[in-house]
Amino acid sequence: MNKQALVEQIKKKQSYLCVGLDTDLTKIPTHLLKEEDPVFAFNKQIIDATAEYCVAYKPNIAFYEAMGPRGWDSLQKTLEYIPKEIFTIADAKRGDIGNTSKMYAQAFFEQMDFDSITVAPYMGEDSVTPFLEFENKWVILLALTSNKGSSDFQHLRVDSEGTALFERVITTSQSWGSTEQLMYVVGATQAQKLQEIRAIAPDHFLLVPGVGAQGGSLEEVSKYGMNKDCGLLVNSSRGIIYASAKEDFAEAAGKAAQTLQQEMAVYLGEIL
Amino acid sequence: MNKQALVEQIKKKQSYLCVGLDTDLTKIPTHLLKEEDPVFAFNKQIIDATAEYCVAYKPNIAFYEAMGPRGWDSLQKTLEYIPKEIFTIADAKRGDIGNTSKMYAQAFFEQMDFDSITVAPYMGEDSVTPFLEFENKWVILLALTSNKGSSDFQHLRVDSEGTALFERVITTSQSWGSTEQLMYVVGATQAQKLQEIRAIAPDHFLLVPGVGAQGGSLEEVSKYGMNKDCGLLVNSSRGIIYASAKEDFAEAAGKAAQTLQQEMAVYLGEIL
Repeated sequence: MNKQALVEQIKKKQSYLCVGLDTDLTKIPTHLLKEEDPVFAFNKQIIDATAEYCVAYKPNIAFYEAMGPRGWDSLQKTLEYIPKEIFTIADAKRGDIGNTSKMYAQAFFEQMDFDSITVAPYMGEDSVTPFLEFENKWVILLALTSNKGSSDFQHLRVDSEGTALFERVITTSQSWGSTEQLMYVVGATQAQKLQEIRAIAPDHFLLVPGVGAQGGSLEEVSKYGMNKDCGLLVNSSRGIIYASAKEDFAEAAGKAAQTLQQEMAVYLGEIL
Repeated sequence: MNKQALVEQIKKKQSYLCVGLDTDLTKIPTHLLKEEDPVFAFNKQIIDATAEYCVAYKPNIAFYEAMGPRGWDSLQKTLEYIPKEIFTIADAKRGDIGNTSKMYAQAFFEQMDFDSITVAPYMGEDSVTPFLEFENKWVILLALTSNKGSSDFQHLRVDSEGTALFERVITTSQSWGSTEQLMYVVGATQAQKLQEIRAIAPDHFLLVPGVGAQGGSLEEVSKYGMNKDCGLLVNSSRGIIYASAKEDFAEAAGKAAQTLQQEMAVYLGEIL
């Protein structure tokens, strides 16, 4: 999917919501466990209930990988079920030497047909560029993550001007790909940093996890992170898909997604 | 596998060779393509031919993931075929927020039964510690990698004493786990750095990729990297498994592995 199609969808749906499909067999309603593929049965109903309120789905690959080969089947079925106009993110955090990153790119962009993949920056340019060689496919590079451990290395000062490592990752990587193919992960739990990030990456889309279970504020993220195209995909996983643990889980997920969408429409009204 | 068992195996086999199973359908001998599972058929013969010369096998997970669900079947069969006394490394370079890293740990340590997994450090402590909660399982943390892009971020100076990021990764992470459960990846292409790394991590095992196709020298790696327990696992992938593209591929792989093992026996003779 190209940037224009993504922005058009945001305008049409008045939403920049990404629904995280972190589907865990131990957390889904127990009545689904009798289904042939409980994970897909769960995802299908979540997608049916939330598709009108979101512009992206982000399956967290770990949750599928933990189930072995049948997890990959559930993932493939889920991906095929997502409506074509909705942006898809393989939250995989891959990254390896060039010939290996190329294999990962084939896995997620050819074997499966994701629009984008999250990639870890530690190994540098040749670990990222193989993912950038596919038309209308995106790399979403980890910059500043939402977890506690983000303080271990991402905030280290890497020059005499006090540039943080995550800022260096953003400025260095901008030469690897355009704003039409490269986004950054910036955690909602560090919303005040979004303003600084917009100073060095005004035009990139940012994928923002951490609203909800991790404690980030949608209002702050939107205030500090939006640009003229919106430029944000704000993810919520557990707050939507586990809004209810009972048979009404899909209805509850739809309502949780709608609540976020309605708040987003207000913020979008100020810029679009 | 615990450290003692690994060291005993190194002494017994007079080897610290790790064979990288980067098995690629487009590179294996064409006569294998008629097999029901060509990847497993290839790996099986490679393992039969090299097991007496190596102490570890390292499947590169990307190569299996790129084949979809059947790739995971091939990986599982390969893992089960590896003799139990040989150390196994899932070269997966995973790492995510805590609840997600826990799922990856389950995938590689429970769903499959790998002895170890490579992990990327960028997201910090809580992205790594879930992998350290399994008895006799190891994290192999990326420190200084063998690729060109390692110069983009890993060598950045992160304090006024000139500490490099990769050195900070090593010193910070030592509080997360013991030398019985934590190793580091240090590329053979930067062998002279091994001496500096031994000054800050004298007792850890180091996994050293990059000998062979990537140009690293086994002699230099051994000279600068060995400690009193050997403390090295030196990986060769393409130089062994693709030593011949013909029907004699397994025999050629065995010979290539034996050549490295014989050189290793000389260096081990100097310390053990």
